[in-house]
Amino acid sequence: MTDTPVLSAARRQAPLSDDTGPEIASFQLDNGLDLVVISDRRVPVATHMIWYRNGSADDPIGQSGIAHFLEHLMFKGTERHPAGEFSQVVSGLGGQENAFTSYDYTAYFQRVAKEHLATMMEFESDRMANLMLADDVVAPERDVVLEERRMRVETDPGAQLSEAMASALFVHHPYGIPIIGWMHEIEALDRAHALDYYKRFYTPENAILVVAGDVAEDEVRRLADASYGRITPRGARPQRIRPREPEPRAMRRVAVADPRVEQPLLQRMYLAPSSLTAQGRDAFALEVLAELVGGGPTSYLYRKLVLERGVAVNAGGWYMSSAVDETRFAVYAVPTPEVSLDQLEDMLDRAIAGIVDEALDEKSIARAKTQLIAETTYAADSQTSMARIYGAALAIGETIDSVRSWPADIEAVTHAELAEVARRYLVPRRAVTGHLLKAG
Amino acid sequence: MTDTPVLSAARRQAPLSDDTGPEIASFQLDNGLDLVVISDRRVPVATHMIWYRNGSADDPIGQSGIAHFLEHLMFKGTERHPAGEFSQVVSGLGGQENAFTSYDYTAYFQRVAKEHLATMMEFESDRMANLMLADDVVAPERDVVLEERRMRVETDPGAQLSEAMASALFVHHPYGIPIIGWMHEIEALDRAHALDYYKRFYTPENAILVVAGDVAEDEVRRLADASYGRITPRGARPQRIRPREPEPRAMRRVAVADPRVEQPLLQRMYLAPSSLTAQGRDAFALEVLAELVGGGPTSYLYRKLVLERGVAVNAGGWYMSSAVDETRFAVYAVPTPEVSLDQLEDMLDRAIAGIVDEALDEKSIARAKTQLIAETTYAADSQTSMARIYGAALAIGETIDSVRSWPADIEAVTHAELAEVARRYLVPRRAVTGHLLKAG
Repeated sequence: MTDTPVLSAARRQAPLSDDTGPEIASFQLDNGLDLVVISDRRVPVATHMIWYRNGSADDPIGQSGIAHFLEHLMFKGTERHPAGEFSQVVSGLGGQENAFTSYDYTAYFQRVAKEHLATMMEFESDRMANLMLADDVVAPERDVVLEERRMRVETDPGAQLSEAMASALFVHHPYGIPIIGWMHEIEALDRAHALDYYKRFYTPENAILVVAGDVAEDEVRRLADASYGRITPRGARPQRIRPREPEPRAMRRVAVADPRVEQPLLQRMYLAPSSLTAQGRDAFALEVLAELVGGGPTSYLYRKLVLERGVAVNAGGWYMSSAVDETRFAVYAVPTPEVSLDQLEDMLDRAIAGIVDEALDEKSIARAKTQLIAETTYAADSQTSMARIYGAALAIGETIDSVRSWPADIEAVTHAELAEVARRYLVPRRAVTGHLLKAG
Repeated sequence: MTDTPVLSAARRQAPLSDDTGPEIASFQLDNGLDLVVISDRRVPVATHMIWYRNGSADDPIGQSGIAHFLEHLMFKGTERHPAGEFSQVVSGLGGQENAFTSYDYTAYFQRVAKEHLATMMEFESDRMANLMLADDVVAPERDVVLEERRMRVETDPGAQLSEAMASALFVHHPYGIPIIGWMHEIEALDRAHALDYYKRFYTPENAILVVAGDVAEDEVRRLADASYGRITPRGARPQRIRPREPEPRAMRRVAVADPRVEQPLLQRMYLAPSSLTAQGRDAFALEVLAELVGGGPTSYLYRKLVLERGVAVNAGGWYMSSAVDETRFAVYAVPTPEVSLDQLEDMLDRAIAGIVDEALDEKSIARAKTQLIAETTYAADSQTSMARIYGAALAIGETIDSVRSWPADIEAVTHAELAEVARRYLVPRRAVTGHLLKAG
């Protein structure tokens, strides 16, 4: 029912800003709930997503994993609707549902025939205000989460390397803490933690409702007023308390060696500004740079390491632009059997050092932009993707306009801007290098 | 006036537990202030130390450095005694004073002729309750702290490596944050932060008064009642909110390369239990192991790397046993000019791997114990050291008895215990390795 995207390659996607973009209305209910209505009249279906402006990076000290744990507990019922009823109704209507927790937000969604939108609002608004958390529900669900962590991380050396690299990259900021939480802290989460967290963050002021589909603004407003609108506001939105990373000074390296490793891996992450923290147009330039350097088999790293040098069987990179605070720009390469990670790293270093001189030709720049913008065109074709793009953007503090202008902003990135962000951010002292090795 | 010990080699010191140990009395005032009186009648001098059970690891999120900043501000006067008066009185009486901030506590002390003890109590209790913090005092003092950080860290690559290694070792716990704070967070500290912090932590319940010298228990009690005893209690001691480190999984490496580096350095830190977190007798065994492996020119590492192999000009190690939470066990080596850090690290790895087989002979074990216990004998000869030993122990949650029994606990460490802690804690996945290199 729930999943936790690790956002390993969560490049932001956004719709086209030309006339073919969807009609979007946004407004606020009297209790502070933000609403976004995205018109999509192609099929008689509605996507209903509620976004909360809190994610794992807002977990209280010592309670890592509570955002994700509460996401699980949100399926445990209210006085009016016992555990499982909501999910049964959705599937009974032929619908789909899901939920996910990320660093900066938590979201719940259903996709149903449009005439059932009111029903979704009734259920979703009910659990925003009236969640029941009995002790006999909390403890078994914690076991479920612990098992989830065991399966995803404890038995996967690659996931362990990712966790260790994030910890090393973010020395001060909670992006260094895994979304699912540290094992020993999940084990200690209890009903009181969950209830405190729920009361603090699950409020109308902290939520954004996104409805996409064959629906009219005034109808959505009327339905939302009759459901969400009845929830008492708290008077203010809860605060995110986020420290800022210190300026990095040291090159860092992390290695996980495990007998279960089938395929060695070289990874590198650089601390980089996000769409929210970037000065000027740096985030747009970093998006183009990531695509150009690491986006698929025509990218600079793939050409250099796989095609020209023959030292890697795969290579690429990505940039997680969408984040409230400073974020990661990553590159990776998978060595051919006869190449060591140290040798591969030496080649990677040279390739990174050569970006400004060798990678930024006009043709590659144009290709990267086209690629990025094309991805958003495909995304705009999916109602759920559209709802997700706008919901995520608003949940981290961006605007509808910023999403709409994104393709133009990408198009406007210059050679000079690309060279500047490569020089400024892809430097050793901002980097954590990871080696995943077969032990023994 | 103030200093911030980085505690780079703060091996705990404690007095002998035999009949020659000092008389110690301990009691509590009605308002919750703990008192310890250590008799030392050799000279007519008294050491007056007040310890607060809060240090840099208790700094609120985003306000790193506030514990240390407040330590500075504590010298800025009260309504009754303007800024500088206390210090002038102490020096006018021919006395000494100092203050220091550590991870787990903050302390202030004066050493004066015993007849001035009442005066010290009057001043110190006054600033526990009545500190004045005018804006025109706070901002200039913040500049002083910023300059302190610039001098100590920003211009010292070795300090930068230490900070980066601590950040990498403590991925979740605030021991990874420098005591003095991160530059950008010190810059943002203001009067409101300082006042909130002062009100939260500077309370009688949170303090321990240690008086050592030619003083009687009943006299100290009477003086303390008349000064500290008049401070209104808050009803409860403030809580330390401390996350626990996750079980480490990845080998980590940190490198700082700087043109100012004159002498390359290899360092390694292992995450290890402290005297407070250790199961059984592990902390005692780690103390003996640190002395045996790294305590001076007769130690195992010095013999191996400097004398036998000739690859280092210095080598050693230390263990910071005294800590509320999990702590660090460190080893280091300084290479000879013709040896690279990688070569030296290879030798260090072999030496560490050889500890159980090569270092734990009975003679070396006996020598290490004698050395450790002898150091405490010297410490017991200094009134101020004694006050500091008991104050630090109580401030982190140990007892007077645990300090008194420490030499016997050290004496009882066995070969099997040493082998066990070496095998359990000196392993790659618990380690951060640091290289300090000359750049260019």
